[in-house]
Amino acid sequence: MSVTLADIQSAADRLEGLAVRTPLIESPALNDRLGGRVLLKAETLQRGGAFKFRGAMNRISRLSDEERTRGVVACSSGNHAQGVALAARMVGAPAVIVMPQDAPQMKIANTRYYGAEVIFYDRYRDDRDALTRQVSADRGMTIVWPFDDPFIVAGQGTAALEMAGQAAEAGAALDLVLTPVGGGGLAAGTATAMAALAPHAKVWGVEPAAYDDTLRSLASGQRERVDPAARSICDALMSPFPGAVTFPINQQRLTGILTVTDLEVEEAMRYAFAWLKLVVEPGGVVGLAALLAGRMALEGRTAGVILSGGNVDPEQFSRILTDAAP
Amino acid sequence: MSVTLADIQSAADRLEGLAVRTPLIESPALNDRLGGRVLLKAETLQRGGAFKFRGAMNRISRLSDEERTRGVVACSSGNHAQGVALAARMVGAPAVIVMPQDAPQMKIANTRYYGAEVIFYDRYRDDRDALTRQVSADRGMTIVWPFDDPFIVAGQGTAALEMAGQAAEAGAALDLVLTPVGGGGLAAGTATAMAALAPHAKVWGVEPAAYDDTLRSLASGQRERVDPAARSICDALMSPFPGAVTFPINQQRLTGILTVTDLEVEEAMRYAFAWLKLVVEPGGVVGLAALLAGRMALEGRTAGVILSGGNVDPEQFSRILTDAAP
Repeated sequence: MSVTLADIQSAADRLEGLAVRTPLIESPALNDRLGGRVLLKAETLQRGGAFKFRGAMNRISRLSDEERTRGVVACSSGNHAQGVALAARMVGAPAVIVMPQDAPQMKIANTRYYGAEVIFYDRYRDDRDALTRQVSADRGMTIVWPFDDPFIVAGQGTAALEMAGQAAEAGAALDLVLTPVGGGGLAAGTATAMAALAPHAKVWGVEPAAYDDTLRSLASGQRERVDPAARSICDALMSPFPGAVTFPINQQRLTGILTVTDLEVEEAMRYAFAWLKLVVEPGGVVGLAALLAGRMALEGRTAGVILSGGNVDPEQFSRILTDAAP
Repeated sequence: MSVTLADIQSAADRLEGLAVRTPLIESPALNDRLGGRVLLKAETLQRGGAFKFRGAMNRISRLSDEERTRGVVACSSGNHAQGVALAARMVGAPAVIVMPQDAPQMKIANTRYYGAEVIFYDRYRDDRDALTRQVSADRGMTIVWPFDDPFIVAGQGTAALEMAGQAAEAGAALDLVLTPVGGGGLAAGTATAMAALAPHAKVWGVEPAAYDDTLRSLASGQRERVDPAARSICDALMSPFPGAVTFPINQQRLTGILTVTDLEVEEAMRYAFAWLKLVVEPGGVVGLAALLAGRMALEGRTAGVILSGGNVDPEQFSRILTDAAP
């Protein structure tokens, strides 16, 4: 069940010409502010507005003809939903997405726009995995898990594979990499790629302070669950516990976890708007937020930061933009 | 007073390592919508948030030691202001910027942040050129004109020079290029570069419908002035008439001018937010607006579109985002 660089390279072959090779963006203003060099992997510019298409397409491209005809089902707060819907449409498979009813409107609308059927659940009361299994059993659809699948992890790792190559093209040696952590798929893929390609780079996961399940799980050595009463602005990172596939990889490969508050996330979204001219969603900006909040000093070093998604409702984005910091 | 590809290449040498080689961004969603291929030259990601640094740095890098010590003065609604302020700071020259008092707050604040002194004028009543000449005479400062200078035109042309190379790397042949037109510096530089590098590509300028001075000037064959009562959301494109240096170049090189309304500009800004995850200011998005509004059918062709800047106040951006289209 582990994932290797070869698995990530195989995923990259599957994604060739289908996923966007997103740019690695460098901002002199950001470098000046942080006193180091920051390379932003803009997965906001990925197909579907988030890195999730990578894993979804890698998984779905491996369905048999019969599985493809019966279709796929996935549970997701929205970015995996869009990735699966897009990938399914591209291979001609029907798709059902089980989404929390409080998911951002844009994510729900786009998932439907990409041709998927949406079924809602209550994020705080229902068992989304049970619901997903039910749809799978009823309709004979293959489940595309949001993170707990080696093909998903390998697909997400292609962003870091590209980043390593692009950093080299830019004449940069990455000292550290910051990646958001929800269920841990992107983090596991990133850490696996970097361990092989840039073994001296430290890979840090970043979690919302209120959804620090991986931080606490790394401390205790076992998969800890988030308090069901916890809330976060980072809807994309609200997985209730680390994955069975992803946690052992992150346990082995991550240097550690940093956490950021919702206010620090909003501040980073405003910074990205004003200085980077990029739209980044709350869960996508946590790596940048950690640097801007001084959670880790950069001091002449080079950091790769994955901006993992940009799917944020205009109403929420407007509110955050105009909530000027004191 | 003309500008050649050699001038643009010389400017590119001056800008090497100083200007950002901005990415050429392609969005499958946008391609699908328009039925062709669109390559977006994201000058929003340029130093200072707009292409203007290119021309300003090319001009300022050619000052003598004495001129540099005395400093520079420029008049600008904001993007040239920031470009000049940044370039002046980088070479150690003092800078004064003459700005309209209704310029976006972000542009004023950033111009000061970059170390320049700001002097205000009334966009609709004062003669900004006279005011600029006055400062130059009083303080012995060299004037850095916003567009009417061959070094400025050549500097702005480096964006198209990069775009041509990046399009080739992406395996694309540009059939047409869309560039915003204010005073005409970016358009003249772009048209000059494309005429040499991709002579079959048609280069179209795009103006706000209410600021169509270049459109009317091309029709009449002489430089026509905008109605002083005209208003536009595109603050960056509100030059009162085409430049003496830029107009003859655009007259010779541009295929023509398209115009877009303020409502079409706002719609394009919302599209860029929702589907491209890019922050683009009103004057920067006119090329994309022309395509989205169907002003020119793409039909299987490839267009290069210069997104020339992203300096927009959060309040204005929020208003536009939440003014949902009917």
